[in-house]
Amino acid sequence: MNTVIQKRLALLREEMKRAGVDYYMIPTADYHNSEYVDEYFKTREYFSGFTGSNGTLVVGQDMAGLWTDGRYFIQAERELEGTGIELFRMQEEGVPEIPDFLYEKMEEGQALGFDGRTVSCKEGRRLEKKLAEKKIGIAYGQDLAAGVWTERPKKPCRDITVLPDEINGKSTAEKLEEVRKKLKEAGAGYLLLSKLDDLMWLLNIRGNDVECNPVALSYGFLTQEEIYFFAQKPAVTEAFEKYAKENRIICRDYDEIADFLEKYDYKGKVFLDERNSNYALFKIVSSRTGHVAGDNPTEGMKAVKNETELSEMEEVYRKDSAAVIKFIYWLKKNIGKIEITELSAARYLDDLRRNTEGFLDLSFPTISAYKDSAAMMHYEATEESHKTLAPEGMLLVDSGGQYMGGTTDVTRTIALGKIEDEVKKHFTLVTIGMLQLTEARFLYGCTGRNLDILARQPLWNEGIDYKCGTGHGIGYMLNVHEGPQNIRWRFTDGMKEAVIEPGMIVSNEPGVYVENSHGIRTENILVVKKDRKNDDGQFLRFDTLTFVPIDKEAVDTAYMQPVDVERLNRYHAQVYEKTQEYLTEEEREWLAEATAPIEK
Amino acid sequence: MNTVIQKRLALLREEMKRAGVDYYMIPTADYHNSEYVDEYFKTREYFSGFTGSNGTLVVGQDMAGLWTDGRYFIQAERELEGTGIELFRMQEEGVPEIPDFLYEKMEEGQALGFDGRTVSCKEGRRLEKKLAEKKIGIAYGQDLAAGVWTERPKKPCRDITVLPDEINGKSTAEKLEEVRKKLKEAGAGYLLLSKLDDLMWLLNIRGNDVECNPVALSYGFLTQEEIYFFAQKPAVTEAFEKYAKENRIICRDYDEIADFLEKYDYKGKVFLDERNSNYALFKIVSSRTGHVAGDNPTEGMKAVKNETELSEMEEVYRKDSAAVIKFIYWLKKNIGKIEITELSAARYLDDLRRNTEGFLDLSFPTISAYKDSAAMMHYEATEESHKTLAPEGMLLVDSGGQYMGGTTDVTRTIALGKIEDEVKKHFTLVTIGMLQLTEARFLYGCTGRNLDILARQPLWNEGIDYKCGTGHGIGYMLNVHEGPQNIRWRFTDGMKEAVIEPGMIVSNEPGVYVENSHGIRTENILVVKKDRKNDDGQFLRFDTLTFVPIDKEAVDTAYMQPVDVERLNRYHAQVYEKTQEYLTEEEREWLAEATAPIEK
Repeated sequence: MNTVIQKRLALLREEMKRAGVDYYMIPTADYHNSEYVDEYFKTREYFSGFTGSNGTLVVGQDMAGLWTDGRYFIQAERELEGTGIELFRMQEEGVPEIPDFLYEKMEEGQALGFDGRTVSCKEGRRLEKKLAEKKIGIAYGQDLAAGVWTERPKKPCRDITVLPDEINGKSTAEKLEEVRKKLKEAGAGYLLLSKLDDLMWLLNIRGNDVECNPVALSYGFLTQEEIYFFAQKPAVTEAFEKYAKENRIICRDYDEIADFLEKYDYKGKVFLDERNSNYALFKIVSSRTGHVAGDNPTEGMKAVKNETELSEMEEVYRKDSAAVIKFIYWLKKNIGKIEITELSAARYLDDLRRNTEGFLDLSFPTISAYKDSAAMMHYEATEESHKTLAPEGMLLVDSGGQYMGGTTDVTRTIALGKIEDEVKKHFTLVTIGMLQLTEARFLYGCTGRNLDILARQPLWNEGIDYKCGTGHGIGYMLNVHEGPQNIRWRFTDGMKEAVIEPGMIVSNEPGVYVENSHGIRTENILVVKKDRKNDDGQFLRFDTLTFVPIDKEAVDTAYMQPVDVERLNRYHAQVYEKTQEYLTEEEREWLAEATAPIEK
Repeated sequence: MNTVIQKRLALLREEMKRAGVDYYMIPTADYHNSEYVDEYFKTREYFSGFTGSNGTLVVGQDMAGLWTDGRYFIQAERELEGTGIELFRMQEEGVPEIPDFLYEKMEEGQALGFDGRTVSCKEGRRLEKKLAEKKIGIAYGQDLAAGVWTERPKKPCRDITVLPDEINGKSTAEKLEEVRKKLKEAGAGYLLLSKLDDLMWLLNIRGNDVECNPVALSYGFLTQEEIYFFAQKPAVTEAFEKYAKENRIICRDYDEIADFLEKYDYKGKVFLDERNSNYALFKIVSSRTGHVAGDNPTEGMKAVKNETELSEMEEVYRKDSAAVIKFIYWLKKNIGKIEITELSAARYLDDLRRNTEGFLDLSFPTISAYKDSAAMMHYEATEESHKTLAPEGMLLVDSGGQYMGGTTDVTRTIALGKIEDEVKKHFTLVTIGMLQLTEARFLYGCTGRNLDILARQPLWNEGIDYKCGTGHGIGYMLNVHEGPQNIRWRFTDGMKEAVIEPGMIVSNEPGVYVENSHGIRTENILVVKKDRKNDDGQFLRFDTLTFVPIDKEAVDTAYMQPVDVERLNRYHAQVYEKTQEYLTEEEREWLAEATAPIEK
């Protein structure tokens, strides 16, 4: 019996009765559909005990259910034990989606409640449409958790910083002008910008309110003449106030957005990204004026990095790669000699990054997964549960940093000693695929769907797949995952498929995951460049930003063609050249060996 | 001055006045949107003199314009000379599409005329929508050509044949039942089937009314209880009548379809493929009842070949491959010794096919293109204009047959003597790509868009592209091009993108086309098979149906990896094994040499 959770649910049910709400839904989200959320927004965790990153709790007077995806079935089962909350395994046969479940369960005239700020416009509209068929109302104006969660942490509110102009490559004035042009083209008079990284990019500022993502809780409202910026008062520093004044950014309080939208004197429609704007604000906009739906115009602009951003990133990636090289050197030297655990290894690497010039934060919590732990794509070693490393098998480390001048993301799987032949084979196939995609030339017009098979083919030929995309976009001193580009072979659930543009940054991370045995992933970050142009069109290619050796001890040349060997040697020659200046004499000697050409 | 055409246009303009039509549009189509059309339907050619396979003529009182695509710009320019007809180069910058052109040119209250049977529902609706904005009417009920084109040939009308049951693999009763199930699922009461190959497939019959396509001019109207079949009276043989009776197929005259649809007592909507049904019939259906738009349910069913069809095809492809081998042997032996032209070579090959057991017809007119002629993808050698072959350079031959038991399609580019290094390089890259796609393993769920790059990558890496898809579906004793599957890297103009299903047949034909220099294409036909199935999903692979040697004299191993050499040798070993029984001693000896393994 989990009486803590049961008590919380009982109190919530009281609130529901008071509010006249029959079912209450709690998703995992802040007001901006951010990928990571701060403690303040972990309402679903508070009421269910489930700590996974994805899940929605639905509470009625005589039931409570938690919907989550395949990554979390085992964890959720454990964490929900004794709470009385039923687990709904998403995507499994016979498991209803939430709108269908509610449609089935609820009766005419009843009301569904949720905090409209934590539900996207898209999801909210979907629920609205489905439940309207049965005349079920929606009460989205109240956060019922407020009355129960008394010890709730404060909303994150950290200083907003202004990025120096020489690091942006483009002034906010130029960006605003371009966005305004796109708004006109879309037939909209205004832009309601809720997506935090887009807003940071647009105003050339950063915050620190979301774990690992340097963004500030805020909204933007853009007209053809003005830009309103809604941020928490304490986050607005003097420096920012000065900058805002200079750039004619009108500052308002974060909590005023609803009231502002309610009272604004609209002369046209509001452009609004239905996936990244919340339902509560959408309802105001749509009651006051029309809206134009679409991807935020900022998204595509932000994804194509300018020359300044690219040259900053090159530098940052070399330093970040050197930190990872130092880590691998240390690991290989000390394994079997001193005690190293998954956790202490991650900490050692994090410290190396912290000591790197320009370091601001990790770009996501370091994943350090030994042997079969690495088979779980979202494994997290904890104080309570982690492995001690031994001089055998492989350690997968997926990590990255936020630096002044770029965001990094890199995965290496490192042999700590003897490894099995099958593991070597898998590691080699992943290497081949990663490098085959890296060296691709392709015509402008391709999306990630055209390219994905280049990374996957060596594995598919052996009847092996990895159940995730091959690559994602990456921010510039921003979120480690950003769109619209993606490298994947199929797009489901309304995922975006975007043409690969020169200047885009994309990860290249094929892998093999064998349950209870091992997990391998090798991830480099690539930048899209123009290649030759001729009568056949504009060809594109990738340049690599990441320069960390691929563990030759885990490579079996028996599976490689000469061209694969050449590609690996070519890459390794670059690794040495680009990083050696940041290394000690000892590390450099080791790297020379680690990157020396192999022969077939 | 081309007075013949000018006179015809003048007469047409008189007809237009009489009919109260301000502009008259003549596309290139029969009433079924067939890929090839019979002489009877070549109205556009009659009024313009342009003989290309794609083009639309628009005639006003003071202008006439012909729209065609890039393949035909040069030819159209020549053929339109002196006719007063303006050439509109489709897809070129600043060239309006027909609806926009008419919208611009025509005035309120005017009328556009066309024979509604020769315009697809889709195109007709598009025109209707655009012109309605300006209150321009559409008169689709009259074929104005009828009054002018007095020496017009008769409509093709050849005997309908019933296929023996042992060659179909599935009875028409079974097929009808499946289609009826799909109709119900789609919420339609009826199916109006205008696509000729789909109708032939459904009823297990064949015709001979469209060049190279064994189809009969006909319509089908399917209800949950009955199937009406509208065909030309003289085409209905006694054998077919007997078969129709046995299968409860209700025969009506071809010309009765409009009247039938007008008077039918509908109890539900009619399913109708907007791309393959004509506008005239659509208008009747939509005035009498609603319609459900979608791809014909027969299309996907027809595309997945059953076991009987597959085993028949395997046999047919071996014999057809042997005919091509005999041709190549003869060509290589005689080149420089006897006079051979592009035309006589094609004729020799056609004769070899004619002498092959089960041969019915060519599946398309043989393309025989020497040296730079092969750079034109749709080159056609004619009596007036063709090349004589010499013992140097390459001859591209793209050909196929209709057999009792299958439709074939194969391209080989053959070295007649010394060839340049660049040509060898291109030939080798094409070979590598073709075989790389052939040997791919891929997960169920892939479409041709995922796979295309496997064939294209060796060329793209060198900055070379071919401006067409890599592969198309192929009929079973039916059209050499059929959908819905396709292998291409992008889909434009509403092209269909379909998941690759086991049992589908697809061509694999990368190429290189260098204007004024050379053209290379190597085309094999593949069948999709199930490969292993495991936790990662159902893997698929291809088996090859075509067994004709790839000219080793044009291969340069310098561009090949060992795996490419292995693939070629593996393929060649199969070629010999599968075809040698059909060859003479001499041919067999030659083939043994032509398929002997190469070494890198």
